[in-house]
Amino acid sequence: MSDYMELALKRQSTRQFADKPVEHEKLVKCVEAARLSPSGCNAQPWSFIVVEKPEVVAEVAKTTMQLGINEYIAKAKAFFVVVEEYAQLMPKIAKIVHSQYFAKGDLGAVSLSLCLEAQSQGLGTCMLGIFDRPKLRELFDIPKDKDIFIVIAVGYPSSDQVRTKDRKPLEELVRFV
Amino acid sequence: MSDYMELALKRQSTRQFADKPVEHEKLVKCVEAARLSPSGCNAQPWSFIVVEKPEVVAEVAKTTMQLGINEYIAKAKAFFVVVEEYAQLMPKIAKIVHSQYFAKGDLGAVSLSLCLEAQSQGLGTCMLGIFDRPKLRELFDIPKDKDIFIVIAVGYPSSDQVRTKDRKPLEELVRFV
Repeated sequence: MSDYMELALKRQSTRQFADKPVEHEKLVKCVEAARLSPSGCNAQPWSFIVVEKPEVVAEVAKTTMQLGINEYIAKAKAFFVVVEEYAQLMPKIAKIVHSQYFAKGDLGAVSLSLCLEAQSQGLGTCMLGIFDRPKLRELFDIPKDKDIFIVIAVGYPSSDQVRTKDRKPLEELVRFV
Repeated sequence: MSDYMELALKRQSTRQFADKPVEHEKLVKCVEAARLSPSGCNAQPWSFIVVEKPEVVAEVAKTTMQLGINEYIAKAKAFFVVVEEYAQLMPKIAKIVHSQYFAKGDLGAVSLSLCLEAQSQGLGTCMLGIFDRPKLRELFDIPKDKDIFIVIAVGYPSSDQVRTKDRKPLEELVRFV
């Protein structure tokens, strides 16, 4: 099995966090690895807010629990808030597509990178795509012209059990030509 | 250094492909690993066309060389074409956002996964976001209601030189709160 396959099999949405703080250094490494992620024209249309202070962590947790499906998030020890930034494309490309044309895909990739580096360091993560945007904007003074792409909850998982992944079978997904 | 950091540092856009065929089994492993990628509501809004037959590879290469910036693609030995599929969201989520709300980010993540698994097996990749969509649609009979997200060129790199990554400094990207 390749190194990546091993990591991909282990990475999962952590929904039970241990009551154990997360080291600042580990969070720094996550953003260091994530920024190596590829992006259209290498525009790197992202910035990160790393939330560590318990009182701010509690505020962010609240913004993600609105649908009554994320109660476990109250036990997360840290968050990454991933913000979309303006993408400066190569002139040849900028002539044919708008600046943010590749941005959502780039942000999806950089967000996965954050989770993979976290997993690589023994941390669990859970990607949260639904949250109270206006409240988060206010909390971190994020201007309205910048989208908040995702919130990622971080903490040590309370168990190392790796669940079997529920995925569509390969033959439904792939054509070889 | 973590396993992931090591892999992220090695993965790069390969722009010089060796004249060496790519094993079918390795391409299968890439899609096997990629489908483990996370997605909003686990909707897995993707499918893959793995292009291996030399005459089809040549046709796909042509669709990516329109801007005169991708001549090296003529030497790619295979392609992944990543297609956006309909995303079935959880009912609670489907009430507040449209079906494809998370799709572009999910597709960005799954595309990075393809490249990371390829790298893990010694293959080089190059993500191509600009290509002749109508021509590709025609070639693979992809209906108009499905977006073709990305084309990824694959082959053995002609050198194992790892370039230094050109990325914005961390302090420009991150706030700790």
